[in-house]
Amino acid sequence: VLDPLFRPKSVAVIGASNRPLTIGNRIVQNLLDMGFTGTISPINPKDAVICDLPAYPSVLEVPGEVDLVHVIVKNTQVPGVLADCGAKGIRVAIVNTSGFKEVGPEGAELEREIVRVARQHGVRIFGPNCQGVMNTDPEVRAYCNFTFTRLIPGHISLVAQSGGVGEVINNRLYELQAGIRMYASNGNACDISIPEILAYWADDPQTRVIVCHVESLADPAEFLRVAREVSRVKPILGLKTGRTLEGSKAVSSHTGGMIRQDTKTELVFEEAGVVSFRDQLELCDAAYAFARQPVPAGNRVGIVTNAGGPGIVATDEVIEAGCELPELAETTQARLRAALFDEAIVSNPIDTLATGRPEHYREVVTALLEDVNVDSILVNFITPFFVDCEAVAREIAALAPGAPKPIIGVVMTRKEGWAPTLAIFRDAGIPVFDFPETGARALGAMVRYAERRRRPDESPADFDDIDRECAAELVASVGASGGGYLPQATAFALLGCYGIGSPPIEQARSLGETLAAADRIGYPVVLKVDSELLVHKSDAGGVALGLHGSDELAAAFRDMSDRLGARADRFVVAGFVERSGVEVILGAKREEGLGHLVMFGLGGVLVELLGDVTFGIAPLGAGRAREVIRGIRALPVLEGVRGLPPVDIDRLAVMLCRLGRLVTDNPTIIELDLNPVFAFGADRPPLAVDARIKIG
Amino acid sequence: VLDPLFRPKSVAVIGASNRPLTIGNRIVQNLLDMGFTGTISPINPKDAVICDLPAYPSVLEVPGEVDLVHVIVKNTQVPGVLADCGAKGIRVAIVNTSGFKEVGPEGAELEREIVRVARQHGVRIFGPNCQGVMNTDPEVRAYCNFTFTRLIPGHISLVAQSGGVGEVINNRLYELQAGIRMYASNGNACDISIPEILAYWADDPQTRVIVCHVESLADPAEFLRVAREVSRVKPILGLKTGRTLEGSKAVSSHTGGMIRQDTKTELVFEEAGVVSFRDQLELCDAAYAFARQPVPAGNRVGIVTNAGGPGIVATDEVIEAGCELPELAETTQARLRAALFDEAIVSNPIDTLATGRPEHYREVVTALLEDVNVDSILVNFITPFFVDCEAVAREIAALAPGAPKPIIGVVMTRKEGWAPTLAIFRDAGIPVFDFPETGARALGAMVRYAERRRRPDESPADFDDIDRECAAELVASVGASGGGYLPQATAFALLGCYGIGSPPIEQARSLGETLAAADRIGYPVVLKVDSELLVHKSDAGGVALGLHGSDELAAAFRDMSDRLGARADRFVVAGFVERSGVEVILGAKREEGLGHLVMFGLGGVLVELLGDVTFGIAPLGAGRAREVIRGIRALPVLEGVRGLPPVDIDRLAVMLCRLGRLVTDNPTIIELDLNPVFAFGADRPPLAVDARIKIG
Repeated sequence: VLDPLFRPKSVAVIGASNRPLTIGNRIVQNLLDMGFTGTISPINPKDAVICDLPAYPSVLEVPGEVDLVHVIVKNTQVPGVLADCGAKGIRVAIVNTSGFKEVGPEGAELEREIVRVARQHGVRIFGPNCQGVMNTDPEVRAYCNFTFTRLIPGHISLVAQSGGVGEVINNRLYELQAGIRMYASNGNACDISIPEILAYWADDPQTRVIVCHVESLADPAEFLRVAREVSRVKPILGLKTGRTLEGSKAVSSHTGGMIRQDTKTELVFEEAGVVSFRDQLELCDAAYAFARQPVPAGNRVGIVTNAGGPGIVATDEVIEAGCELPELAETTQARLRAALFDEAIVSNPIDTLATGRPEHYREVVTALLEDVNVDSILVNFITPFFVDCEAVAREIAALAPGAPKPIIGVVMTRKEGWAPTLAIFRDAGIPVFDFPETGARALGAMVRYAERRRRPDESPADFDDIDRECAAELVASVGASGGGYLPQATAFALLGCYGIGSPPIEQARSLGETLAAADRIGYPVVLKVDSELLVHKSDAGGVALGLHGSDELAAAFRDMSDRLGARADRFVVAGFVERSGVEVILGAKREEGLGHLVMFGLGGVLVELLGDVTFGIAPLGAGRAREVIRGIRALPVLEGVRGLPPVDIDRLAVMLCRLGRLVTDNPTIIELDLNPVFAFGADRPPLAVDARIKIG
Repeated sequence: VLDPLFRPKSVAVIGASNRPLTIGNRIVQNLLDMGFTGTISPINPKDAVICDLPAYPSVLEVPGEVDLVHVIVKNTQVPGVLADCGAKGIRVAIVNTSGFKEVGPEGAELEREIVRVARQHGVRIFGPNCQGVMNTDPEVRAYCNFTFTRLIPGHISLVAQSGGVGEVINNRLYELQAGIRMYASNGNACDISIPEILAYWADDPQTRVIVCHVESLADPAEFLRVAREVSRVKPILGLKTGRTLEGSKAVSSHTGGMIRQDTKTELVFEEAGVVSFRDQLELCDAAYAFARQPVPAGNRVGIVTNAGGPGIVATDEVIEAGCELPELAETTQARLRAALFDEAIVSNPIDTLATGRPEHYREVVTALLEDVNVDSILVNFITPFFVDCEAVAREIAALAPGAPKPIIGVVMTRKEGWAPTLAIFRDAGIPVFDFPETGARALGAMVRYAERRRRPDESPADFDDIDRECAAELVASVGASGGGYLPQATAFALLGCYGIGSPPIEQARSLGETLAAADRIGYPVVLKVDSELLVHKSDAGGVALGLHGSDELAAAFRDMSDRLGARADRFVVAGFVERSGVEVILGAKREEGLGHLVMFGLGGVLVELLGDVTFGIAPLGAGRAREVIRGIRALPVLEGVRGLPPVDIDRLAVMLCRLGRLVTDNPTIIELDLNPVFAFGADRPPLAVDARIKIG
């Protein structure tokens, strides 16, 4: 369906111009310079010839079919032009024109208007307020964009919400000679969306890796759905900008959106299997590596270096990028001991010495390709003036094509002096980096994607013991009254519907009801005021723990009633659970456009202060739930150190899955906190001791 | 004293050669290519002419004075050659020859031998197993090295423990056209040391910034002493490699040192005011910025951008680099509202829009230079094809020379197409980066140095109430018996000598002594077994807390004696302190070559698991002690959140200073732990409740 956009046979440019330094001129010129294989039809009411091409006063007068147009006219003229496009049977319009959502409410209204008009006329809109697209396919050669970047055909496709960021990335990929397949920057994205483009590229065999820049996700759930599918097939490298509060303010003035720090996009990336970056350079380096080399099977890197110091740098960086340096197989070491100089180091990182000979590198790389302990190879080579570096490069290059493990080159040299050496590596498909740091990080990104591919595809967990009807009624009972916190008894009953364990609890309004409830539950009990009028009930003395008989309970009841008066209008009695196991917190909150997030952390004031909590997107599977739980820095606490009992993480994961179901099924829940939950070993299920559930 | 090394008037090359691709040939050639202003004397017993220069069979036969030699002969011949050098009156020898400490014990012995010979003959050694030095000073032009890097004269001086790393950095600085002043890579560094070189460059007015790479500090204390002085005068940018355990293993096989993860070097950097890096690229970018621009007064950055997306990237990166984006002065905003396009954004980050005109940039940069809220300026410029970019560059360039605030350029462009624009920025001394990320991080490094410069110079705290004599006796009493843990009573007495508060404590061997001690101390008391035979006394039931009278004490005494038998051969009785305040841990450990480190952290199992502890080097001043304490992530706990009482950090800092004095004065202490210490508000001094002190 996006073929007319990326593979047009005929492009019209409405607003084409002979005036240099205008967008209408630049686009026609770019199409010509790139050697567009289709027809170019400039549209301009005044000129009959533009850039030596016949021009037409209206798109309706172009002879033959047109499948793609650029629209560069004044913003208020866009609706009319789109109607003409529809009449002409044009399927996609790139609206470069700005003055829409990004300029305020009036622009937003105009943007809704062009969407209406386009829908009515069967035209899809790319943009508005955007750059456009490019495709280096020799059959197409479309440069539908007004930018200055040069393109080398290749296997990286790039979609960027910001055209400026897209241009910077594109330009860097050009400098790296990394090779581009397709490019898209869709600005306000009122119709054709980034997920749609990702899905299109998933099916393009020449796209080996997708780069995706976003400032804010228009439809996070849709992005998640699509990106999760696509990232199974090929890597998506994601860059989210506007991460800081200050940056998000700048996003807001840039795009006209709300000011708020966006914490969910990186979570969506993680859940979708998108490899996330915080740096354009690192992103480009990784794209370059993915475009040229296979994905490694695992994280075990074999390093060969010819210089000690840079080899140490490579080692540090490989480890810090999340890889391992495995022990080499004994056969590998023996083979290298025989082949290399006596002083060479045959353990990992292998050091051939600066004087290492071309055939030494052949032996090393061959041995590493064959070594079952090694998943990828980092060649860390500084060009000594006394070695035939081109011969070294040729030996390594000969082994690269078709090799089942990625080979990443770091060639430290004066580039003018050693250009042929660099070319030999590059021509063999070995990506070449200037620094151990950059090479190692690119490899680290490949390893992160390898992990994503190993992640089993799991559906969200479901449970056949859930009482959805009862739950819906409980939630509706509060929703009808305009929202707010669920009464304690209702909240715990709701947990019960979803199989989330908690102590028995009952509501009570009088001393009599209170004592009767306690008799049913059994002592010891907890008495709590359960009033919306009393928010911090613990601080206000509205909670009495560990009441061991009716006398204690009655005294506590009278005390609260006396002290709190009208605010103590409703109570709950619950079974008292001695503080035990490990205290954890489970929670959920509604996230616009994404359903709900679930949250996990340890209980206790210190951990909360350190911000050691992790998130997942509901509903989630047990595997993902375990990842979320195991993601906390204080994981050792759950694993049972220093005399603390080990916690059954599987049981906690089930509880988190049930919680995810609960909020997904009941979307009016805004916030939910189970704090604390007592978590135990395999012999005892976790128990939610307190619960706050807010409906909105 | 290093003038003969860096500013030689006459260089001899012992082992010079006509054979291409040898070090002896390369060095002579490099000296010639660089246009060395002094005399070059190749030494070779066989050839009379080398590289068209008259050669001599021995350095003794060179006519006239020689102040520097390269030694490239076989390792075993080096001692003899050095003796000749001494006889000739040569003051420094660069020993390029390898085969010394780095190859094992025999080599190490040979290295000691050459040091002996050199000392005897008044020759200083640079190396061995090293590259050499370079100096771009037009009066010198010395390329005493066999590498391939090209040098552009400038203001960065670079010393690298690893020649390979030095070469990579140097080459990158060449690509950046950043400009080098002097270079040194001294390999095994058996004599002339990195600190000596730092001190030399501190006095070189043309060196504006020093780059320093280390794998392991030979003499950390000396490095600290010198670097602390030098970094007051000019920035030192430090890179420590071999950070990971794997990397440190590689350092070990590279240099022949011990395998152990080096955690102290970065601490030394921090205490010395060295700006620390983990990445060669980032280091080079920062050096480039320091070489060209003044140090900012503070961390408040004014950004001007002409593209929204890249402006957001710049904003994120500036914030993540530790800077702030201040609100601009009202006068600045008014001025810009009048000068820029209506749609331009006049708050920080300022957006001129892509169509922004040259005079707009002049207004913006002028306004930011004058704005008292702004310490530095980041110009984030993407080159639009429809703007006269050279004119923009000229407007900004005109304001840069002599400006009191640093101006950092980020120019995103196709370099071939916009080379003149780039040149205009560069020629005005504005460092130009390709990415907002790199520009922002370079600025972040300048801000880190600005903070170092604001740090007051403080001497280690001293106290006139310390009883050093008594303390020395207490420590010696155990030292004499071969080391081990101090008995509890001795440990606390030692704390007392240094004014570190603790509950009263007495030693006791019998029930009678125990009861008598408790009477003197006053109930409630603690009874502890104090035996070297019982390491985990708490786990073994060797501690009884909160004993409220003689009956309880006697019972506890009998119980321990019965259960522990011979292991309960010695007791202490101490005043019992109710658990109160905030529990913290203070500690110290001896660190080879550096004296002692002191340590600070919160008490409690979770924080310990999260590794949230900070270190300082003893002895330390109160300001530094406060920095160490305030460095923990869980700082809010000390500041009094969630109902916890706020802690008087000044009083804790004094305790840490006293502890630093204690271990510095008593260097036989290997380890010291005060765990827990109860810390309180201003009304009550912190109290060390338990202490373990190990002597070795």
